[in-house]
Amino acid sequence: MRLVPDGDTRERLVCRECGHVAYENPKIVVGSVVAHHDRVLLCRRAIEPRRGFWTLPAGFLEMGESVEDGAIREAFEEAEAHIVLDGILAVYSISRIGQVQVIFRARFADAAFPAFAAGPESAEVALFAWPDIPWDRIAFPSVHWSLDAWQARAHGALGAPAGNP
Amino acid sequence: MRLVPDGDTRERLVCRECGHVAYENPKIVVGSVVAHHDRVLLCRRAIEPRRGFWTLPAGFLEMGESVEDGAIREAFEEAEAHIVLDGILAVYSISRIGQVQVIFRARFADAAFPAFAAGPESAEVALFAWPDIPWDRIAFPSVHWSLDAWQARAHGALGAPAGNP
Repeated sequence: MRLVPDGDTRERLVCRECGHVAYENPKIVVGSVVAHHDRVLLCRRAIEPRRGFWTLPAGFLEMGESVEDGAIREAFEEAEAHIVLDGILAVYSISRIGQVQVIFRARFADAAFPAFAAGPESAEVALFAWPDIPWDRIAFPSVHWSLDAWQARAHGALGAPAGNP
Repeated sequence: MRLVPDGDTRERLVCRECGHVAYENPKIVVGSVVAHHDRVLLCRRAIEPRRGFWTLPAGFLEMGESVEDGAIREAFEEAEAHIVLDGILAVYSISRIGQVQVIFRARFADAAFPAFAAGPESAEVALFAWPDIPWDRIAFPSVHWSLDAWQARAHGALGAPAGNP
């Protein structure tokens, strides 16, 4: 049931049998804009939501991971890409759905041979030059925001991360 | 019970009656280094863990909040301070305890009258000049990291956020 536990100020989900309080907390999504010679890596989603639309390699941070490790893992899981992170490109709060997204600027670990392939959650993975990005088939607003943030910070020192536009 | 759900790759907590999967995700802590004329705001903890030790105004992000809103709320709850954020000072992953901390550089909303007081979780709140910070009574390593990050970025543009040292 929902009630305000002793010493708290908000309603929480509380088990009526044992009193366990199930705190519902925002979740952390980690991802990256992986670039190679001014082309960026996008994944076409093989799963819902937004199946068939293009997204960045990104997903929920797991317990025991750093944000950096999580972003590297997601690039491998969704795009079979080994990446190196430059730093934090953006931090977005999608508060309506309880998400905080930490997006990195990244490149391929082997710049001479940028290997990638569709992981189980991707139908297709490709490098796009900026004008060729399928803007009308982008999965989520924050993918668009991240690409814009990347274009403004594609080279050199990263500076302060972008926030919600 | 713990098992690997269909289509997943990790053990999760699954209800043996209804099959509900309780994902355990890292939690987001938001906080700030609030400075006034080169003095920083610290709170002496009135609660466990680390009761009696000094910390930054910080706490768990709530559902429906942006990281910015959460940091502003925590400064008010713990130090009764109205603050304005300059930007992200640091992003730390405390993966052993499943936390990601987003720490802002901040100042008092009313710079002419930096009002603060102990909220319910603080025994005492004070502004400290750098040499007077109670270094041997700091509550958590990430408080120390955040203060060091602030000292390196106390003025001017913030640049890239600090990460784990």
